[in-house]
Amino acid sequence: MFVTYSQFQINHSMTQLPTFSDIKLAHDRVRPFIHLTPVLTSMSINEIVGAELYFKCENLQKVGAFKFRGACNSVFALTEEEARNGVCTHSSGNHAAALALAARMRGIPAYIVMPNNAPEIKKKAVSGYGAQITFCEPTLTARESTLMKVAALTGATEIHPYNCFNVICGQGTAAKELIEEIGPLDIVMAPVGGGGLLSGTSISAKALLPGVQVIAAEPAGADDAFRSFQSKTLLPSVDPNTMADGLLTSLGTLTFPIIMNNVDQIVTVSEEKIVEAMRMIWERMKIIIEPSSAVPLAAILENKLVVKGKKIGIILSGGNVDLGKLPF
Amino acid sequence: MFVTYSQFQINHSMTQLPTFSDIKLAHDRVRPFIHLTPVLTSMSINEIVGAELYFKCENLQKVGAFKFRGACNSVFALTEEEARNGVCTHSSGNHAAALALAARMRGIPAYIVMPNNAPEIKKKAVSGYGAQITFCEPTLTARESTLMKVAALTGATEIHPYNCFNVICGQGTAAKELIEEIGPLDIVMAPVGGGGLLSGTSISAKALLPGVQVIAAEPAGADDAFRSFQSKTLLPSVDPNTMADGLLTSLGTLTFPIIMNNVDQIVTVSEEKIVEAMRMIWERMKIIIEPSSAVPLAAILENKLVVKGKKIGIILSGGNVDLGKLPF
Repeated sequence: MFVTYSQFQINHSMTQLPTFSDIKLAHDRVRPFIHLTPVLTSMSINEIVGAELYFKCENLQKVGAFKFRGACNSVFALTEEEARNGVCTHSSGNHAAALALAARMRGIPAYIVMPNNAPEIKKKAVSGYGAQITFCEPTLTARESTLMKVAALTGATEIHPYNCFNVICGQGTAAKELIEEIGPLDIVMAPVGGGGLLSGTSISAKALLPGVQVIAAEPAGADDAFRSFQSKTLLPSVDPNTMADGLLTSLGTLTFPIIMNNVDQIVTVSEEKIVEAMRMIWERMKIIIEPSSAVPLAAILENKLVVKGKKIGIILSGGNVDLGKLPF
Repeated sequence: MFVTYSQFQINHSMTQLPTFSDIKLAHDRVRPFIHLTPVLTSMSINEIVGAELYFKCENLQKVGAFKFRGACNSVFALTEEEARNGVCTHSSGNHAAALALAARMRGIPAYIVMPNNAPEIKKKAVSGYGAQITFCEPTLTARESTLMKVAALTGATEIHPYNCFNVICGQGTAAKELIEEIGPLDIVMAPVGGGGLLSGTSISAKALLPGVQVIAAEPAGADDAFRSFQSKTLLPSVDPNTMADGLLTSLGTLTFPIIMNNVDQIVTVSEEKIVEAMRMIWERMKIIIEPSSAVPLAAILENKLVVKGKKIGIILSGGNVDLGKLPF
């Protein structure tokens, strides 16, 4: 039923995993289209935690999330012939908006399968970027079968939100920019959901800073990556329960081996500390982040790792929150 | 009772007004202590307004406001002998925190007179930076007389929040950075309260971009700068009523003539548009700004100036808001 890491190593001997060279290529490809997001620091948060934190602000990326990097790389990596038929995916979140915008920038169609109970604001964002939405029942089976039909009908290329070579390479450009700007770091942190951001981040960090520790943070209420990492077996996310709604998904067959190869530690955090970290960043740094982005700082506040005196880079993954539904 | 602009020109013939050379000196002085704040753009806001907007994010400055630039310049411009006795001011807002932090950075005392009804959070911020607070009755007379006593007792140098040569020079460094980063702009905008930010901004903009228009925006409920500008007479702010609580004060004897010399237009905006602009920046740019910062974009949304196709720099003045009391 479950696939272990050693089985992966064998199964994937034929499957190409991305390297830092692929991330460099991706960076050259997406550079004209993405925001070079700022790296911010906060004197007062540094004093609280006793370390130097460097926040890479992907909440300030286009569509408000790092997802635009991976979507953009995937869209612009298509051949002219592939591109003509467009791209498709099923998503109710940031990946849908990111793919829709990237496709619009290349001038090709985007077909997005969304559950019919997706929030109005997400539907509007995606259709606002000119994508064609197909609604389906809110089950994974319905989403996958509807996407298969859409792909068959249109010939569009499916772009998976995280378990996809070009998506992972695109996401890795954020950590690359962070390290190129700040220089040596002792630790690089990212939240983990499906593992696309963490995979790309870990490849860039290990290539650019050989002695660095890559540490992922995950909500205790959605700890499938933590359990997979500990058991060296890809375990699915079962009934996840966390306000960090970007981190509900399971790792994938591509992201799992990359994480096993490159990540030093995965730590889990409580919902209480996620709210505390989120509020701390809003109040002290004056930027809007979504709960998923707060998870690495939450891990530090919860003393899940030794940070005293260290230089730590943190990827803030996104800033898409409903201002009418804040947890504080 | 009121002083007209021509009287000012005579009265101030002996008073030195800051020039761009002074702002360059200020910039060299404060550079090691301030954040080089990012300039952000939003594709979706550009599409809405039909112009290219470049937002200089002073909400991401230390203490969450541009005020730190002026306070820092004033503190570090003191001679060793002056510095020994520290600095003082009366303020219940961002200037108090900014002065306290700047003084702490130089290792000198800061004495802050605050009304006893100031919000707890402001008192905490100021004392957190190590300043010594003297409380007084919440009237201007009490604040001024208490400050005189404090200054007499300590020998501290008073740093006025805006009507002060070195403060104005410090505030002008934000527009200087903006223009140095982005290059030519058709219009530069800032909100106007006491006029410190607007004065510094206008000097930098006119020096670096000879053809530029400098346009200030002010809440209609606190339109003393607008009326002063129209009548060429320094008129006080009377019973101002606006949520933009950074813009309640009157222009000063230094800021008024600078503004008369350098500003092309002052426009007023409704409270409704301030909320709309503030929410637009929160939602689309993922940054936290206070209502005062939203006033220039509000003027654009209210069609108070012709922006079509133009490149416009906007100083976002600060991000200190009470998350428990949002206007949306």
